[in-house]
Amino acid sequence: MNQFLSVRDAGDMEELVIEALAMKVNPYKDQEIGRGLKLGMLFMNSSLRTRLSTEMAAKNLGMDVQVLNLAAEAWALEFEEHAIMNGNNPEHIKEAAGVIGSYFDVLALRSFPSLSDQVKDESEAVFRAFARHTAKPILSMESATRHPLQSLADIMTIAEHSPIKRPKVVLTWAPHIKALPQAVPASFAEWSIAAGHDVHICHPPGLDLDPEATAGAQISSNQAETLRNADFIYVKNWSMRNPYGKAYEGGEDWMLTEAILHQAPDAKIMHCLPVRRNVEISDELLDSPRSLVLDQAANRLWSAQVVLKKMIESLKDEKTKYVGN
Amino acid sequence: MNQFLSVRDAGDMEELVIEALAMKVNPYKDQEIGRGLKLGMLFMNSSLRTRLSTEMAAKNLGMDVQVLNLAAEAWALEFEEHAIMNGNNPEHIKEAAGVIGSYFDVLALRSFPSLSDQVKDESEAVFRAFARHTAKPILSMESATRHPLQSLADIMTIAEHSPIKRPKVVLTWAPHIKALPQAVPASFAEWSIAAGHDVHICHPPGLDLDPEATAGAQISSNQAETLRNADFIYVKNWSMRNPYGKAYEGGEDWMLTEAILHQAPDAKIMHCLPVRRNVEISDELLDSPRSLVLDQAANRLWSAQVVLKKMIESLKDEKTKYVGN
Amino acid sequence: MNQFLSVRDAGDMEELVIEALAMKVNPYKDQEIGRGLKLGMLFMNSSLRTRLSTEMAAKNLGMDVQVLNLAAEAWALEFEEHAIMNGNNPEHIKEAAGVIGSYFDVLALRSFPSLSDQVKDESEAVFRAFARHTAKPILSMESATRHPLQSLADIMTIAEHSPIKRPKVVLTWAPHIKALPQAVPASFAEWSIAAGHDVHICHPPGLDLDPEATAGAQISSNQAETLRNADFIYVKNWSMRNPYGKAYEGGEDWMLTEAILHQAPDAKIMHCLPVRRNVEISDELLDSPRSLVLDQAANRLWSAQVVLKKMIESLKDEKTKYVGN
Repeated sequence: MNQFLSVRDAGDMEELVIEALAMKVNPYKDQEIGRGLKLGMLFMNSSLRTRLSTEMAAKNLGMDVQVLNLAAEAWALEFEEHAIMNGNNPEHIKEAAGVIGSYFDVLALRSFPSLSDQVKDESEAVFRAFARHTAKPILSMESATRHPLQSLADIMTIAEHSPIKRPKVVLTWAPHIKALPQAVPASFAEWSIAAGHDVHICHPPGLDLDPEATAGAQISSNQAETLRNADFIYVKNWSMRNPYGKAYEGGEDWMLTEAILHQAPDAKIMHCLPVRRNVEISDELLDSPRSLVLDQAANRLWSAQVVLKKMIESLKDEKTKYVGN
Repeated sequence: MNQFLSVRDAGDMEELVIEALAMKVNPYKDQEIGRGLKLGMLFMNSSLRTRLSTEMAAKNLGMDVQVLNLAAEAWALEFEEHAIMNGNNPEHIKEAAGVIGSYFDVLALRSFPSLSDQVKDESEAVFRAFARHTAKPILSMESATRHPLQSLADIMTIAEHSPIKRPKVVLTWAPHIKALPQAVPASFAEWSIAAGHDVHICHPPGLDLDPEATAGAQISSNQAETLRNADFIYVKNWSMRNPYGKAYEGGEDWMLTEAILHQAPDAKIMHCLPVRRNVEISDELLDSPRSLVLDQAANRLWSAQVVLKKMIESLKDEKTKYVGN
Repeated sequence: MNQFLSVRDAGDMEELVIEALAMKVNPYKDQEIGRGLKLGMLFMNSSLRTRLSTEMAAKNLGMDVQVLNLAAEAWALEFEEHAIMNGNNPEHIKEAAGVIGSYFDVLALRSFPSLSDQVKDESEAVFRAFARHTAKPILSMESATRHPLQSLADIMTIAEHSPIKRPKVVLTWAPHIKALPQAVPASFAEWSIAAGHDVHICHPPGLDLDPEATAGAQISSNQAETLRNADFIYVKNWSMRNPYGKAYEGGEDWMLTEAILHQAPDAKIMHCLPVRRNVEISDELLDSPRSLVLDQAANRLWSAQVVLKKMIESLKDEKTKYVGN
């Protein structure tokens, strides 16, 4: 695994999940594998779960870790090619990425979308720039369009709680007070589909997700019907693609409550967190045994650890190949 | 010691002080005791001494440490039960505490009071919420009403510098330009009383501390008389309880100066820092051999280390019990 | 090496460069030398390269490292002697330095100039205050007037790329949109002169550097002529000394471009970064094989590592001496 940006980098997903679950039982089995390897964790945006779990995962593997809030502690970055840099951003990504890449063996990066410039966001300009200007493997800690460490933790959580191989998984839009990225729901959809789940998505008209991510899912605007007999319900707000980045107006009745769920008596509730209580999901559901939200967050540690382990193994394979020649 | 929030968690204080002083001579004696245990240090507010000393203490015991400025680097937290979360705080303490508790073995937390909502502050809402939503032991790095790591360092410092078992200790209010919490003086009072010192408190009328913390102390509004023949003088500003959180107006003549001290020729001067020079205490005193303020700060390392060691021992005891059954 | 503030602390520079280059080949040779020693890294200002490389260097030597953004995470500092501290700065440098010095074995400090108070800046008030109030060795991560870790990395880079012992090195002023310190160019000038290079400096009239740093260099205001047959061209903006801290108005034609360089066909281009592309240096040059800017930044790791190693050796020598008596 020489990068981890989306489901396409996951390799054999079933094996990945099994190995992650094994780590949960035996966290320190590989504590020497990362010895002498350096992870740089770079944040353009806020982070709680991702930051704590990724740093801890890397240390569990013996890596050295350094965390930097790029905008707050270092310099604001310019991404435009050929920019005349007489504005507010004193450092170009070319130099920043080149320099950081020279210090670390693996780079972990978080960069949310602008939600104002669709082309830039969908091109993953920040990640591509880092990839272009450093030769080091890159681990996504959430990009403009995907959040694969979250999705892997979600798939692990479903694997732990599903009595059947092909559960009915519903991804339902929920109301919110702000315009949020599509990274988490799009990412979850493509991972859940790739995992072989029976995936259903429901949202008010006009809130379509990236069609590339949802190919293979049933899509509807009828929430009640879609939820029927669901095994897992993933709740999440996201903003519109057209007009791009706009928050949906209305839809307050899409909040997930006990009342809505009478037709899915055994459904488990999922959310990536942070969750707006009594806006996205009611207290009664979040505080009930139906809720898996803390399980998902706890699994973030193991999803990061298994991915870092795979990346370390690839690094070592390459080194061996090189020495072998 | 399965939590450390106030003097009530100190156990045998004399033994605690003796062990802390022994660590000062031999810092690395227990450097393996915390191996594999993870400390999460969470800050809602600024910190210099507490942050540096607590992280260092944990590492001296072999623990892994992660530091997070919650509001600045992660998400602003909602504490209200049943809140409809359509305001500025995107994450509820229930989730934040649950998640963080799942990653770490011990949580260290700093959360200053609002100074506007007395009921909330005195209920220690933030600490209680963390305690309720995680099963992990919690170490106070200063709460709304107490600062026990500071108080333990203060008692250690008195033990090192006192020629007698029961010194006369005066806690005197000092002027300041802002409204400050009562956490440090209330905490010091209850630790000093519990340590068996002869405790006297003086402040202008209307600046009473939490009576629970001061039971057993002599209280007066006559500074000159109270200071007479003091062995230790702890200087500190604090705000009023009624009206709650209000800065006292006036009292500039309560600044501690050499002139005031002619009746306590051998008194040592203490302060938790940061100190406003020439507002709370004069330069001449802070720069004189009377001042113990740097000794107190240096002892913060050992107070944190001894407390963390006790918490680690409790964790291990529990694990052993569990295995034993 | 019991401090590292300027070229005067470098000792035998040639030996220092040779040892740094040897570390580059064998980074972990001295990984036990710093075991049990604690480095405190204190930032008053933003940092990318310096922060990442210095922390990594210290860990490569086995040191424990703690990083603190003083103003953002702790308390704003007062530096004035005898100040009546009723303003915005709640902590005096006397206490802050005394406390921090009591926790760490080595202090690394970054403090940019005010560019408004020349006397204060040139007296290096912040560094002097730390030196006066702590007995611990201090490593400059850029002061008001010098940036020696950068300069050592620059000299290493020249040593790696120079075919001759005494290359022609040109330090040329470049335009910028802000007033910048003179620390980097003054520091580079004095290191390059001390390294025995043939040093030439060019800038528009009125932009003189600290004459103490440039003694031994040829100084001119004719850029084209100065650049002729240069082996290395160090590009950097700086502000005026008279009036102090003022940005130079004009000089846009001093931007370094391919067109200007026809008379120095083999010249390598250097810059400390961050660089304003197409303001200080053109894209074509920065993206060409002429550019050494990433090599310089990569060498920051080894310049920090060799200096920390020397400081550790001095600490151990002193301890041995003390035990010997």
